[in-house]
Amino acid sequence: MRIVALAGGIGGARFLRGLKAAVAPGDEITVIGNTGDDIHLYGLKVCPDLDTVMYTLGGGIHEEQGWGRADETWSIKAEMKEYGIGPEWFGLGDRDFATHLVRSQMLTADYSLSQVTEALCVRWKPGVRLLPMSDDRVETHVKITDEAGTRAVHFQEYWVKLHAALDAEAIIPVGADTAKPAPGVLDAIASADVILFPPSNPVVSIGTILAVPGIREAVAAADAPVIGLSPIIGGAPVRGMADKVLAAVGVETTAAAVARHYGRKGAPGDGGRGVGLLDGWLVDTADADAVADVEADGITCRAIPLLMTDVEATAAMARAALELAEQVRR
Amino acid sequence: MRIVALAGGIGGARFLRGLKAAVAPGDEITVIGNTGDDIHLYGLKVCPDLDTVMYTLGGGIHEEQGWGRADETWSIKAEMKEYGIGPEWFGLGDRDFATHLVRSQMLTADYSLSQVTEALCVRWKPGVRLLPMSDDRVETHVKITDEAGTRAVHFQEYWVKLHAALDAEAIIPVGADTAKPAPGVLDAIASADVILFPPSNPVVSIGTILAVPGIREAVAAADAPVIGLSPIIGGAPVRGMADKVLAAVGVETTAAAVARHYGRKGAPGDGGRGVGLLDGWLVDTADADAVADVEADGITCRAIPLLMTDVEATAAMARAALELAEQVRR
Repeated sequence: MRIVALAGGIGGARFLRGLKAAVAPGDEITVIGNTGDDIHLYGLKVCPDLDTVMYTLGGGIHEEQGWGRADETWSIKAEMKEYGIGPEWFGLGDRDFATHLVRSQMLTADYSLSQVTEALCVRWKPGVRLLPMSDDRVETHVKITDEAGTRAVHFQEYWVKLHAALDAEAIIPVGADTAKPAPGVLDAIASADVILFPPSNPVVSIGTILAVPGIREAVAAADAPVIGLSPIIGGAPVRGMADKVLAAVGVETTAAAVARHYGRKGAPGDGGRGVGLLDGWLVDTADADAVADVEADGITCRAIPLLMTDVEATAAMARAALELAEQVRR
Repeated sequence: MRIVALAGGIGGARFLRGLKAAVAPGDEITVIGNTGDDIHLYGLKVCPDLDTVMYTLGGGIHEEQGWGRADETWSIKAEMKEYGIGPEWFGLGDRDFATHLVRSQMLTADYSLSQVTEALCVRWKPGVRLLPMSDDRVETHVKITDEAGTRAVHFQEYWVKLHAALDAEAIIPVGADTAKPAPGVLDAIASADVILFPPSNPVVSIGTILAVPGIREAVAAADAPVIGLSPIIGGAPVRGMADKVLAAVGVETTAAAVARHYGRKGAPGDGGRGVGLLDGWLVDTADADAVADVEADGITCRAIPLLMTDVEATAAMARAALELAEQVRR
């Protein structure tokens, strides 16, 4: 079976680890990773979401933190502070820096981000095929208003420096409108047997991937069932500050509202949202009330435990998603 | 008093520390640093000699090693090995990497190496004005013959990887012929009260600096006395493998031969060596026999202890050099 999953950072990576534990030998997993979080720091290209997936599946992640490397050292960060060179709010450890150095050197030598990602995965052996959503530069910016006025800041500045404490007035995936899907992305979607939306951020992770022209349309047109898992449990994000960016796109922080935001597969888009995508949707047992609402929208819905407390609990979520795919398969 | 010193790496930096201890308050030291050792690694510009001077005078050097940073960590090197990306033979610690990241980012933003060096020195406060010999790229290559045939390798490959175990057939400062002295270099030489050649490598350190068109001529034309200190004691280099590169330019490994290689100030060059440079030359007491030979060439010579065993011993060497300058001042 060929499984395609769209993924952001920490939540996506943890779900993928459960998915790997859930699938049968011979099943192939292709991950389309968000690159809208990418940022240039110290002259290097940093791809936080791709790296989180790679490190998590390759056994190098800092488990408690969810991002960055295990057994990390912080000499460069200390030196940068001595040199007075920022940003201090973005934590890049020394081991992590090595990845960005290798990536940046290859990009400078005119390899594409896809090729670089493949090369990095030769070491990490994540057990999935990891594709960036695009080889073109896309950077998510967030419109905010503070005492300095209204302006757009890089997503990382909004998320990591400002802790999403200000309202996000708009989410702007800069460059997405002219970006092309990376080689292999559209083929993987078209030939998939199942397409999964992990409980990643629906706006700045999955939403950014879908903003690359051609990807949303390919998912909507795919023969494969499309199954999503709610990142919202009991009216709040499981982790992170997804409520802030959901509000920016006019979506309530509920499991049902996020399903409606993705839309029923093939349903005409409204409000600039594009064609609908979901065949099935999993909500947490705490949101069992939402099942009827979601099904009223034409999306098959089940309530199961959705807390990724450990790999086994996460694998159970993945199995439920694959089972739901079989139930809705046309 | 304005003192100008040409300097390579470890030997030059240690001499400069003694010089700083020897001078009077208000004296100004300008260091013209060799950049022929520079190398591009992992997409970054590495300037080993400038950094050794900066770290040594700024209090950040690894004392025993003589190069690199104190309290260093080696996470990136370990990661590069995991990624299979070399060279493994060149040791760049994590703290050191921070310097190369800052430098490379500024160079990419079109600052000159002079400007970058000045910016780095804002942190390191070396107590001297540190100028690269040139803002243009110069890379010393060494011609060798091994089982793969005759070829030129980067100086660092010859020195660090091959430990100078093969004969150096020629020393080629690639790019030197079209390089220009960095801003301030010629002015510093012209307005100096004393010019010093520390006991750095006469070929690949001082020799490379002098290979930048205009610098040798400016030293030869300077009003200031030019005093050198022999890096050869008792027929062998004090440290390093200077005998290998001296042989490549047809110079014996003796204190007298190195003085003759630099030449008496204003003496016409022969064998492609260019105009002569020295007013005075200091040899070690072990080489007292050489004094008469050197003076026969018209260079005032004294024998004093030349081992830089500690800062005080080194300061005594610097004081002797400054005293000799007064004796030969015209």
